[in-house]
Amino acid sequence: MSNSIIGYCAAFLTTTAFIPQAIHSWRTKDLSSISLSMYLLFTLGVALWVWYGYVNESWPVVVANAITLVISTSILYLKIRIDFFKI
Amino acid sequence: MSNSIIGYCAAFLTTTAFIPQAIHSWRTKDLSSISLSMYLLFTLGVALWVWYGYVNESWPVVVANAITLVISTSILYLKIRIDFFKI
Repeated sequence: MSNSIIGYCAAFLTTTAFIPQAIHSWRTKDLSSISLSMYLLFTLGVALWVWYGYVNESWPVVVANAITLVISTSILYLKIRIDFFKI
Repeated sequence: MSNSIIGYCAAFLTTTAFIPQAIHSWRTKDLSSISLSMYLLFTLGVALWVWYGYVNESWPVVVANAITLVISTSILYLKIRIDFFKI
């Protein structure tokens, strides 16, 4: 398998992995066993990856992480809303 | 901020983010709101990142993803054990 294909498969999987979690969380509104700290650190980290891709003009890094950023932010938003505002 | 520092901060955050989730999951043994599909896809994706780093001799990619792989595998193992074997 060529190096690029391994990289694209890896990026595809680690990006799309968060879609079933977001669907599950938004459907059930149950995030009790999800760690708030994880999504705070992860979302901040992914935002830095977008920035890193931007300053290096590495558009695959920007695109993959921008998608992950939207999804992980939606999970983080729901977690904060439910844990702190009970809505 | 230099490009490398942004990258190292991003890698540090997206790698260590899974530590509080693993601690939370192993302490509470509650993974009800964690998506099995997410951890299946994510763990496979991170394993491919390790492979990608190895074939490209990019050791920071190997090290960061190997750490994430250990942590996400431990969460996936616990999720499968509890959901399918009730132990």
